[in-house]
Amino acid sequence: MSSGIALGLHGGCGTLEHRLQSQADWSESRDHLAQALRAGWQILRSGGSALDAVQATVVVMEDSPHFNAGYGAALTARAEHELDASIMDGSNLAAGAVCMVRRVRNPVQAARALLDSGTALLLAGDAADAFAAQAGLTMVDPSYFTTQRRLDALRLLQQRAQTGAFVPATEAEKHGTVGAVARDAQGHLAAATSTGGFNNTPPGRVGDSPIIGAGTYARDGVCAVSCTGQGEIFIRRVAAYDVAARIQYAGQSLEQATRTLVFETLASHKIGAGMVALGATGNPVAPYNTLGMYRGWVTTDGQLAVATHQEIHRMGAA
Amino acid sequence: MSSGIALGLHGGCGTLEHRLQSQADWSESRDHLAQALRAGWQILRSGGSALDAVQATVVVMEDSPHFNAGYGAALTARAEHELDASIMDGSNLAAGAVCMVRRVRNPVQAARALLDSGTALLLAGDAADAFAAQAGLTMVDPSYFTTQRRLDALRLLQQRAQTGAFVPATEAEKHGTVGAVARDAQGHLAAATSTGGFNNTPPGRVGDSPIIGAGTYARDGVCAVSCTGQGEIFIRRVAAYDVAARIQYAGQSLEQATRTLVFETLASHKIGAGMVALGATGNPVAPYNTLGMYRGWVTTDGQLAVATHQEIHRMGAA
Repeated sequence: MSSGIALGLHGGCGTLEHRLQSQADWSESRDHLAQALRAGWQILRSGGSALDAVQATVVVMEDSPHFNAGYGAALTARAEHELDASIMDGSNLAAGAVCMVRRVRNPVQAARALLDSGTALLLAGDAADAFAAQAGLTMVDPSYFTTQRRLDALRLLQQRAQTGAFVPATEAEKHGTVGAVARDAQGHLAAATSTGGFNNTPPGRVGDSPIIGAGTYARDGVCAVSCTGQGEIFIRRVAAYDVAARIQYAGQSLEQATRTLVFETLASHKIGAGMVALGATGNPVAPYNTLGMYRGWVTTDGQLAVATHQEIHRMGAA
Repeated sequence: MSSGIALGLHGGCGTLEHRLQSQADWSESRDHLAQALRAGWQILRSGGSALDAVQATVVVMEDSPHFNAGYGAALTARAEHELDASIMDGSNLAAGAVCMVRRVRNPVQAARALLDSGTALLLAGDAADAFAAQAGLTMVDPSYFTTQRRLDALRLLQQRAQTGAFVPATEAEKHGTVGAVARDAQGHLAAATSTGGFNNTPPGRVGDSPIIGAGTYARDGVCAVSCTGQGEIFIRRVAAYDVAARIQYAGQSLEQATRTLVFETLASHKIGAGMVALGATGNPVAPYNTLGMYRGWVTTDGQLAVATHQEIHRMGAA
């Protein structure tokens, strides 16, 4: 398609061992990735903005129990939810972000409402929920976000800690974040990221997902990026913006820049890391250095594909 | 001095109109800048680390009523304090940050304790205060931070808003942040930033000061940077890390990179902006695009200088 619209997403990277869930669950998680892509693609195809597209894509993943954001989010050490999200408009570098929200059903919508408000860029905690309520967003009881799977995983982690048995948490238990990048028919770029943190996280801990430049970045003509992995390292490496800086200042390609980050810079800290990214032209890239990463894209020819591990599931026209 | 140790600080930029305070107050604020520099310089001169030096420098400014951080911090629209701080070690890119703390006397010490803990990088709200208390830091009643000057300024702002009179807040009322950069005898760089936000700020709003890459950044061999100005724009521009990226990837000098940010990139958003920065060699730079900026430095020859407006007050050997 000459318009060059494109869309990419990730649903978190990690070891994602096949045995951890049923084939039906793996299949459903791929279906939800495809639904998320179709929600965003529908907007792009009808001439909508990249900003609206990444928001719609992330909302579908927030509403799915398969991903660690919104419904089905991870739990803190106090068995509570603290959700973070951010969104950035590459056309004017406007951005919005929330951290430690507990009551807005879709944190990415709160981030978007903040972007639109043009007031604060980042709101934390109760104030962010109050803002979301005032903006007319759907509010829920914090118990809405809790799934049995996350409760079980938290109990297992805490039992291990009590018995003193050193059994490292799997990457899937530790992390998980969702994100999307899009390019619209006007060539504008946007990125969004949303997360529930990680299971058994210290209350009050904020990772890279709500941090513009670390977990999320978008600038027209350069790139749109959304990251997943241990947030502290992404913040220290200013990972999302470093992709842009390598392209803008060092003349690297999107592929070079993202692969350098994932396989060298971030990997040097011995962490699992992944990202989905999109340039001024061309198709999304989604490098990761773990066994798997929930990911998917619609290429400029309108073809949709999703994957959790090496195998790419091509689903035809979006 | 062949060791090349150097130290720089800022205490916020803005219009800083002379008539807003007495000559005695201006003089005392310069004395406090000099005290802050001497605290950091003492550490550097005795072979201490850049990280310890920036922390000690910021602590003195947090304890001074003249600057918007710690004691004398700005008040939110609810007449409460929400303090943010961050610190970064350029030798290993370790960092710590807190936002929305209300009870730790010196937020930069809480940020440093987090850096040392190696657990979370960024903690928010009550959890950050609880961490600080557990780390043995001095805790205070929130009223400790409140000065009559900030209460008066808040009342004035809120009265204006009620009467509907459009009288824009002065830059001094709106912003203010303190920060420091240092290079130690081993050539390591560090940066730290601390703020009380701005007067009449929406509760829950977090600016760039606790955001690594936006308000604070340090990397050995490249630069150390601490910023002051409207945080939302610094976040959108990933300002502190953009200085580093311009040096690393585009081959710019520290002077070029910081002047581009302050006079072009940030100024294009029509905001007051300033920063203090230090490179792998040479003396600190402290560009700002407002009428004044509280600032000071000790150059590699051990000479101390402070300033609030154009005039530089040279104070001799540090």
